[in-house]
Amino acid sequence: MSAPEPTVDHTDVLVVGAGPAGLMMATWLAKCGVDCRIVDKRNSKIFNGQADGLQCRTLEIFDSLGFADRAWKESNHMLEIRLWNPDEKGVIRLSDRIPDTIPGISRFQQVVLHQGRIERYFLDTIKECGGRPVERGIIPTTLSIDEALVSDPDAYPITVHLRHLSEQEATPQQTATSQNGAAVEDGLFRSNLAADDTQDLINSKALDGKAGQEEVVKAKFMLGADGAHSWVRNQLGFKLEGDSTDYIWGVLDIVPITDFPDIRMRCAIHSASSGSVMVIPRENKLVRLYIQLTTTENIAESGGAKADRSEINPQVILESAQRIMSPYKLSYRKLDWWTAYQIGQRVGTNFSAHERVFLAGDAVHTHSPKAGQGMNVSMQDSFNLGWKVANVVKGTSDLSILKTYQSERRRIAQDLIEFDHKFSRLFSGRPAKDVMDAEGISMQEFKDAFVKGNMFASGIAVDYGASVIVAKEGDGSDQGDGTQVTVDNGHRVTSQQSLAAGLGLGKRLPSVKVLNQADARPWHLQELLPSNGRWRVILFPGDIKTPAQRTKLDAFGAAIDDKSSFLRRFTPSGSRYDSIFEVLTIHNADRGSTTIFDFPEVLRPYDETYGWDYQKIFVDEESYHEGHGELYKTFKISTEGVVAIVRPDQYVSYVGSVDDTDALTRFFANFMEGARARVPVAQALDSMVI
Amino acid sequence: MSAPEPTVDHTDVLVVGAGPAGLMMATWLAKCGVDCRIVDKRNSKIFNGQADGLQCRTLEIFDSLGFADRAWKESNHMLEIRLWNPDEKGVIRLSDRIPDTIPGISRFQQVVLHQGRIERYFLDTIKECGGRPVERGIIPTTLSIDEALVSDPDAYPITVHLRHLSEQEATPQQTATSQNGAAVEDGLFRSNLAADDTQDLINSKALDGKAGQEEVVKAKFMLGADGAHSWVRNQLGFKLEGDSTDYIWGVLDIVPITDFPDIRMRCAIHSASSGSVMVIPRENKLVRLYIQLTTTENIAESGGAKADRSEINPQVILESAQRIMSPYKLSYRKLDWWTAYQIGQRVGTNFSAHERVFLAGDAVHTHSPKAGQGMNVSMQDSFNLGWKVANVVKGTSDLSILKTYQSERRRIAQDLIEFDHKFSRLFSGRPAKDVMDAEGISMQEFKDAFVKGNMFASGIAVDYGASVIVAKEGDGSDQGDGTQVTVDNGHRVTSQQSLAAGLGLGKRLPSVKVLNQADARPWHLQELLPSNGRWRVILFPGDIKTPAQRTKLDAFGAAIDDKSSFLRRFTPSGSRYDSIFEVLTIHNADRGSTTIFDFPEVLRPYDETYGWDYQKIFVDEESYHEGHGELYKTFKISTEGVVAIVRPDQYVSYVGSVDDTDALTRFFANFMEGARARVPVAQALDSMVI
Repeated sequence: MSAPEPTVDHTDVLVVGAGPAGLMMATWLAKCGVDCRIVDKRNSKIFNGQADGLQCRTLEIFDSLGFADRAWKESNHMLEIRLWNPDEKGVIRLSDRIPDTIPGISRFQQVVLHQGRIERYFLDTIKECGGRPVERGIIPTTLSIDEALVSDPDAYPITVHLRHLSEQEATPQQTATSQNGAAVEDGLFRSNLAADDTQDLINSKALDGKAGQEEVVKAKFMLGADGAHSWVRNQLGFKLEGDSTDYIWGVLDIVPITDFPDIRMRCAIHSASSGSVMVIPRENKLVRLYIQLTTTENIAESGGAKADRSEINPQVILESAQRIMSPYKLSYRKLDWWTAYQIGQRVGTNFSAHERVFLAGDAVHTHSPKAGQGMNVSMQDSFNLGWKVANVVKGTSDLSILKTYQSERRRIAQDLIEFDHKFSRLFSGRPAKDVMDAEGISMQEFKDAFVKGNMFASGIAVDYGASVIVAKEGDGSDQGDGTQVTVDNGHRVTSQQSLAAGLGLGKRLPSVKVLNQADARPWHLQELLPSNGRWRVILFPGDIKTPAQRTKLDAFGAAIDDKSSFLRRFTPSGSRYDSIFEVLTIHNADRGSTTIFDFPEVLRPYDETYGWDYQKIFVDEESYHEGHGELYKTFKISTEGVVAIVRPDQYVSYVGSVDDTDALTRFFANFMEGARARVPVAQALDSMVI
Repeated sequence: MSAPEPTVDHTDVLVVGAGPAGLMMATWLAKCGVDCRIVDKRNSKIFNGQADGLQCRTLEIFDSLGFADRAWKESNHMLEIRLWNPDEKGVIRLSDRIPDTIPGISRFQQVVLHQGRIERYFLDTIKECGGRPVERGIIPTTLSIDEALVSDPDAYPITVHLRHLSEQEATPQQTATSQNGAAVEDGLFRSNLAADDTQDLINSKALDGKAGQEEVVKAKFMLGADGAHSWVRNQLGFKLEGDSTDYIWGVLDIVPITDFPDIRMRCAIHSASSGSVMVIPRENKLVRLYIQLTTTENIAESGGAKADRSEINPQVILESAQRIMSPYKLSYRKLDWWTAYQIGQRVGTNFSAHERVFLAGDAVHTHSPKAGQGMNVSMQDSFNLGWKVANVVKGTSDLSILKTYQSERRRIAQDLIEFDHKFSRLFSGRPAKDVMDAEGISMQEFKDAFVKGNMFASGIAVDYGASVIVAKEGDGSDQGDGTQVTVDNGHRVTSQQSLAAGLGLGKRLPSVKVLNQADARPWHLQELLPSNGRWRVILFPGDIKTPAQRTKLDAFGAAIDDKSSFLRRFTPSGSRYDSIFEVLTIHNADRGSTTIFDFPEVLRPYDETYGWDYQKIFVDEESYHEGHGELYKTFKISTEGVVAIVRPDQYVSYVGSVDDTDALTRFFANFMEGARARVPVAQALDSMVI
């Protein structure tokens, strides 16, 4: 009996891997109304463990997707880092306290939450937006790219064969650890101490139900978010470059019973000679302990041989923690999860093939989990990519913006690996006994690295280089990973950073409170920028009660209302006035004597059913209950005013004079000129009732 | 064929009416694990309209029930009130701006939200807590109380016959208004211009499905939350006392198209001689307009005859608004709902029969909707009652606490009626032309009333009188509605208000930020007091690093840990340490050099599985990201420290010296002494994992 011919399906985007990076991509596409299939070889999303810190930037992103409040409510909040070091007698003592999130950098602070909950928020959001559900128990078996088609944005150059797995194949093999008579899950199957099982699954012949069924998917774009052993990366022939260390760490998720007083703080504990522990307090009374199992000394003794996985179990890990945290007592009755891993730092050679197949997350960067970066950087990879792919598929941008993905995110991965390399060494090293102890780690150096690392670890420091979508001075190759991304058509637009020094080009828009002109409600500026794929043009006209600024305001309104402007040229006729560009205005004249009717109608457009739009004009003024955002002061906005372009992912593209509206049109023309014909009008007509 | 014998069901509490007051009661009982049936004659919860303002106190209560965040996110926030009055030429002009919520009184501000959403939050919460769902299309037909049983808390003195209605009977009859070809719902069937249909439903013989089926319910307690025409109130023979006025108002819920610049503000617009409009901006671009249809002048013309309901329709109401708001234009394409009502103020003669059958909400107070009080006061009625009934049913309190319901809430209703009487008159009157115009309303007087009314309208001003559960000086009858509620057994406990002048006895506990000692996380004090039926004893020991306060702290710990203390005497053996009383400590020593192990173990109890409790000790200190609560300063706490008792509904019962632990025991003994034998241990053993 010959197998039936596989069915052929077409999709705009195929995502392989339904972890946080893959789900972020699928969520973006669902938000933008772009068709996407997302498949995963595992049959269930829920694992114990897999918790991770959420950076404040990640929470800002979650807020733009509509679910930061859920994460904020359910998570454990980490406020303070406490450093415990050996005293002169070798006994651990509290030596320093540091705020966990640098005060003032974000309206959110770092929290910790189970990955299963985070995946739930993504799944709920995809469903609410009408996206396709995750298809589980499915594995890709072949991948080919038709290079003749890669420069046609409407073509389907990617062909992938998918196979449905049996229930047994799709269930991860976990070690059966027993604790107080109850089975305990471990994460060794996902640890880098375990071998990859993807090839075994591809070769497997077992069948049940739909199992073994094959289908062919043709896609315009594809994302491999399939983890450190990425099958997609292997098919493309790309490598992870870097090293692994000899340090082995164990992880216990327990409800601790201890007289150690800082067990609900994030702690870095360096013992004199037994290694280090990192304490991460979690939700539901759990605490995660990262526990060093090999010290510099015993690596030397073993001659650097790879750790024997079979010798690692919760009791061994606990005993190591007890040695490090002595004289404090530590035990538990509830063990939720455990694992072990070997520290290594690697980064992918390429993040995309022909800008049609992309890689994100663990598929292109692996490192130590202790800095709490992994899941954050992975989600931020596809948060960077999603809107770009969506806008190309929808025909509002040409293909040129896609090169910025590798340029921007591979550079971030390189920086992360460098940071982690340094941080891990300081963490795993033995504390210096005194200033003469050259082999030991200086605890002052460790603290300094922690404080400095905090800014990096917040995600707020990200600073994308010059490109077609960041109008910044300098060489885009140098500022990124070496990819050529700057405009070379003679129409490159540059910014005047000095007009708003606080609005850093290439950085995420900082957020402060502003008031709605029409109803006086305070909003965080970022709350006005939900992730829906739209570009924002934000006008800061200053004090519009002065004749000079009034004149500039009126001229700006007339210019962008003209048929030659970006707004009229690149917004498809028949689509809603803010479907491609949302123009927001934030003034600083007296609110009480100002109304929305003081602004040109293009800045507060009229709709026959809904009347004037009351959600476009804002003011920088003290609120009744939530303080004063001081936006003009914080952003250092010139009294002449300024206009900014903000990307759909909230990064600042351009800052310039209110008078130079031509620059806005040139900026957008560089990647919209040839693309605009393909906008499906119906898709742009969503109602956006607020 | 004779009808089958009706079945007999027993329940702890029967609630009639599933509007906000009834749902609040059912939610409290579900939170406390007490059995409750809630029935409603209507077959569906969803109506258009029925929106109302939510006071900041109501949002605090919602937060204690776990869903303020949902209301906050979905509602429209009202920040500013704008008063528009006629100028010297009789043209309306903006004359004043007032903050809608007085700054600083609460962490929430007044918002507006569709009643259907609020009911949804209650229904979800009842479900999450394992309560029984609302039974719809059911009407009570007879009610009897066996007076011989009313003093036995475990008896079922209440017998009610219930009848299941047909689909047709249970569907409200709405006037079919058509707008642009689409049917529009109106609220006249619930307006006081419409006759009550309850008796018709009882007499009806129509049957379908379960329709016509009868059953008998025997209950320990009962709540009539069945609206202004309350069948329960009528069965008990209680009356509503008060007057109606001749003022008729119309209500339109529209998406306005208007050049009136303050349409997204809460506005009070007084025209020179065409009457008044109140503007209430709502969610989803809707605006509610309360529009005066009869002015003082045309009432005089008509000789005070009752308005003809058939002459009122959306066009008539709109035209009235257009006259009042002229010269501004007003029209709409979307009409969501409309109604009309006649202003009246009435309050019930009794709020309970034998402290077994209670009345709440519109059943005992009706008034003008414009002050946004109706739904708030109704929900706060049963928020006051729910925990009291629950604690009596669970056997942790005796019956004596139930008398405080009428004493506390009837007094509030009286105050509300008085407020509304004055407010309505000012609102419906013609503005004075000048100071010599004695018949006109002074706009300055109107503004003063608005500003003063704002504190009343916030719900924060509630100040319950002395009683068995409020250890306050003075005569409880005078401070309440006349009911005798003070302790007369010779063991009355009094407070020392001067030790913490900011913690007003009988008032809700004010909320400021405090930090958790163990993890430095800031919490609003009220967030630590979820509605679960528990009493809180809050110790403010001051600076425990001073020898004097250290000594007091240790003595306090020893005293409440002694077997003679309230904590040991009234917490059933075998139940969790905080099942009846939760003891919280908020100190103001230096956080960095303090740990939870500096406190007696009774203040941070030990559990064999979960270790020490990290959620009981807090500190008044500056947070990293959310400011300084300044609790000791705000509450004006003596440097000697203070201990407070806070009711399960967050009202302050007692304030006294840290040394006088006997007073705590005497306070609780007054209503727990004879009751404690009946605590079901299993119910008290909920796990409370935070």
